[in-house]
Amino acid sequence: MSFTLDPHLERECFTLGRLPLCHVLLMDNAAIPWLILVPETDVYELCDLEPAMHQRLFQEVHLLSRFTRRYFPTDKLNVAAIGNIVRQMHLHVISRRRDDYCWPGPVWGTTAPSRYDGAQVETLRLALASELAGAGFE
Amino acid sequence: MSFTLDPHLERECFTLGRLPLCHVLLMDNAAIPWLILVPETDVYELCDLEPAMHQRLFQEVHLLSRFTRRYFPTDKLNVAAIGNIVRQMHLHVISRRRDDYCWPGPVWGTTAPSRYDGAQVETLRLALASELAGAGFE
Repeated sequence: MSFTLDPHLERECFTLGRLPLCHVLLMDNAAIPWLILVPETDVYELCDLEPAMHQRLFQEVHLLSRFTRRYFPTDKLNVAAIGNIVRQMHLHVISRRRDDYCWPGPVWGTTAPSRYDGAQVETLRLALASELAGAGFE
Repeated sequence: MSFTLDPHLERECFTLGRLPLCHVLLMDNAAIPWLILVPETDVYELCDLEPAMHQRLFQEVHLLSRFTRRYFPTDKLNVAAIGNIVRQMHLHVISRRRDDYCWPGPVWGTTAPSRYDGAQVETLRLALASELAGAGFE
C-alpha cells in the first residue's frame, strides 16, 4: 500500500524516524514526552489486525516504551489506541509524571503548555537512532 | 498470587465475570459502553509483561473488543492502558459513538451522565456468558 500520514498527525507532530513497521512521531508538547507509532496499515481497529502485525506492532510499542522510560523520568506509561479524531491507526506511548501539568488526568484534549525547539527534537532523534539502531530504527 | 481488585475499580465498576486471564468489569457509566479487563498480575506496565501473558491479555482484549462492537453501535473502539489513578494493571475497551456526550474527547476524567440499573448489568452479563462461553467466560 502507498502510505500517507494523516494531515492532523503531520501538523501536530515531528517525525523522528521509523521502525520496520511503524513511523515514529513526537507530539509537539514539550511538557510531556509523547511518542506516536503509526503502522503502515489501512486497518483501523487493533482487533482487526492480522496476529503477526499485531505482535510486531506491540514489539515496537514495547521498544519505545522502554526507551521512553529510560530516557525520561516516568511514573507511569500510558499506552493507547484511541482514534476518535484521527482515524488512521496510531498508538500513543506517553511518559507521565506525578508532577506534570495534567496528572492524573488524561493528556489527550489538553493544550500543550510549551513547544519543542528544533534542537530538542534533534537530540531525541539522535538518542533513538543510537539506542534503537539494532532494532532497525532509521 | 492472591488477587485483590483495586478498591477504586471495585467502587466504580460492576464485575461481569472473568476470562482465563482477566477479570471483566463494567464501568458504571450507562452513556458509554466501557469494559475493563484486569489481568491477575503484579506487573504495572505492558512492556514488562512476559510475552505469553501479553499475548493472552490481548487475545482477551480482542474478544471483548469484537463483542462490544457487535453488541453496541460503535464508531470507534478505544483501547488503553493508562493507570495514572489506579496502579493495578487494567485495560480499557470502550465503545465510542459520534453522538456520545464527550465525542471526540477522551471519556476518562468525565462525569457519567447516567448510571446502570441492575437489570441492564444482568442483561449484559448474560450476553457475555452466551457469546463468550467458548472462550472460557464465566
